[in-house]
Amino acid sequence: MHALQLRADYPVLDDLAYLNAGTCGPIPRSSTAAVASLGRQAERHGRGLEHFVTTSHLQAGQRERYARLLGAQPADVALTTSTSEGIVRVLQGLEWHAGDEIVIAEQEHPGLLGPVAALVRRYGVVVRTAPLERIVEAVGPDTKLVACSHVRWTDGTVAPAGLRELGGQVPLLLDGAQAAGAIPIDVAALGCAFYAAPGQKWLCGPIGTGMLWIDPQWQPRVTPVGPTYDNLAAPADGLAAVPWPDARAHDASALSGESSAAAVAAFDVLDDAGWPAVFERATTLAARLGGRLADAGRAVAPRGHSTLVSWSEADPDATRERLAAAGVIVRDLPGPD
Amino acid sequence: MHALQLRADYPVLDDLAYLNAGTCGPIPRSSTAAVASLGRQAERHGRGLEHFVTTSHLQAGQRERYARLLGAQPADVALTTSTSEGIVRVLQGLEWHAGDEIVIAEQEHPGLLGPVAALVRRYGVVVRTAPLERIVEAVGPDTKLVACSHVRWTDGTVAPAGLRELGGQVPLLLDGAQAAGAIPIDVAALGCAFYAAPGQKWLCGPIGTGMLWIDPQWQPRVTPVGPTYDNLAAPADGLAAVPWPDARAHDASALSGESSAAAVAAFDVLDDAGWPAVFERATTLAARLGGRLADAGRAVAPRGHSTLVSWSEADPDATRERLAAAGVIVRDLPGPD
Repeated sequence: MHALQLRADYPVLDDLAYLNAGTCGPIPRSSTAAVASLGRQAERHGRGLEHFVTTSHLQAGQRERYARLLGAQPADVALTTSTSEGIVRVLQGLEWHAGDEIVIAEQEHPGLLGPVAALVRRYGVVVRTAPLERIVEAVGPDTKLVACSHVRWTDGTVAPAGLRELGGQVPLLLDGAQAAGAIPIDVAALGCAFYAAPGQKWLCGPIGTGMLWIDPQWQPRVTPVGPTYDNLAAPADGLAAVPWPDARAHDASALSGESSAAAVAAFDVLDDAGWPAVFERATTLAARLGGRLADAGRAVAPRGHSTLVSWSEADPDATRERLAAAGVIVRDLPGPD
Repeated sequence: MHALQLRADYPVLDDLAYLNAGTCGPIPRSSTAAVASLGRQAERHGRGLEHFVTTSHLQAGQRERYARLLGAQPADVALTTSTSEGIVRVLQGLEWHAGDEIVIAEQEHPGLLGPVAALVRRYGVVVRTAPLERIVEAVGPDTKLVACSHVRWTDGTVAPAGLRELGGQVPLLLDGAQAAGAIPIDVAALGCAFYAAPGQKWLCGPIGTGMLWIDPQWQPRVTPVGPTYDNLAAPADGLAAVPWPDARAHDASALSGESSAAAVAAFDVLDDAGWPAVFERATTLAARLGGRLADAGRAVAPRGHSTLVSWSEADPDATRERLAAAGVIVRDLPGPD
């Protein structure tokens, strides 16, 4: 990978040190161009049959790419609008009884905590919280699901390898919000049943894209939320229509061709550079930043082999603004410091 | 309204008689331009705090416009990605017990039938189907919800006025897929509890936009699907975070600024022309087309004061292709003729 050449694909990097890919990644010019091209086509020729053929082709390409990233089959990958939507589709799709237990890690994202809390209120599910590093020890006889980050959003800690041993006993839902496009993912090796991830962060795609992988063995046990038109194998069957027998049953109810076009174009920039090189460079640079911050006397949060770097500031708002004025874009995470 | 001047805003109308707004409306050039402008801004300056402020402002504008269209308050309108998503959020959010009855009309869309059938499978809900014109008569003591089209997608029939009398007894969910932007809507006068509608059809917005109105009296009884980050009043409260007390609790989990920008720009073209004039012209032209088709010996389906015209063809595929070759874009509806 020629890093300088790759940088030229992202106009924001001409002016800024854009370090906020944990929220939304930088957008390559090919992505904006793909949206504009499809937009002009739709504006000029309408959105009839031809537009839907184009969209459907783009969606197949998006699904294939996401599957490749996860080490999975396209048939097992649903196209969602966000990580959170994938998480909701799993949590709402499983069957819950009062007293069922969900084990989550500390410091999970509201996109996981919100839907988990809803299960507590609606079904009387019990939540047990444990440190990510020791989450396996928290699993008990009533545990019906373990749900946690693959890479923790607050500090870049990577889920422990021991998680994969859960596979046989309890299904594992991984929140890959800070992993997809940042570090290598192999859903089989991770031993998870469900893997939810976004398109707009480290994959540099548009807001409103994401993926949900469901282990084929678990697909029959997840009732599709909806299902709406595109989730049904034969929508014209009316009340007798049943969902697709694969992950399309869990696709978002509306996916625009423009968002798929942008997602595919953004993916291909990194794919062409080669994922191993992308992962290696991103994690190396993040580790170097963490080291320099520590050398400069900042308290850097312990982190794994990931692309996130967190450190403490007495006045994070002021620091964010000062850095922004200097052309360095970082994010102030909610929390005490 | 100057119809010719309005036509000039939609490039597709230069070349085609685009009569497929029942699927996706024609796109005005201001909409494509708004997407391109925001896209360039995001590409150049990144998607940090400023991008989210812009997006949030656009979403507020989108919500305010949709509310105005429905004769409602913005606080009661959720931004969804589709009519179907709104329907799902209502059906999944209500509480169901075996034997509860849902009354639906004949010829409803798979976007309603799919999620209703899911309630049958999951909770043992019973479905009773009646002709749209006489749906009120089908309501019985076990009826927990009436759900039907405001304007029927197959032929443009408008729901009967008698529906509003249901209000006191049973909640009414209206599918406004073929009404929003096509005919006047006043949710209070319609007597409904829930109104779901799309942004991409008669409002000429992008795929991936829509609205769900919830009567404030019904909001406490609809458990939010999710809720995810933007649905929560204070996401940083973690497991203790609760949904917004208004319709934001039912917003889609990810809404892009680009889709809001396109939706707002497209709305404003028609809004500037004046809704009464838009409705009058569209329904008048549709009635004229229906009359001419009948004069030409076609069997035109009975229709209401709406913008849809359906007629029978022995070989609908061939007719659609022949018309397309002549520059007239129509849709072949699934079904026998």
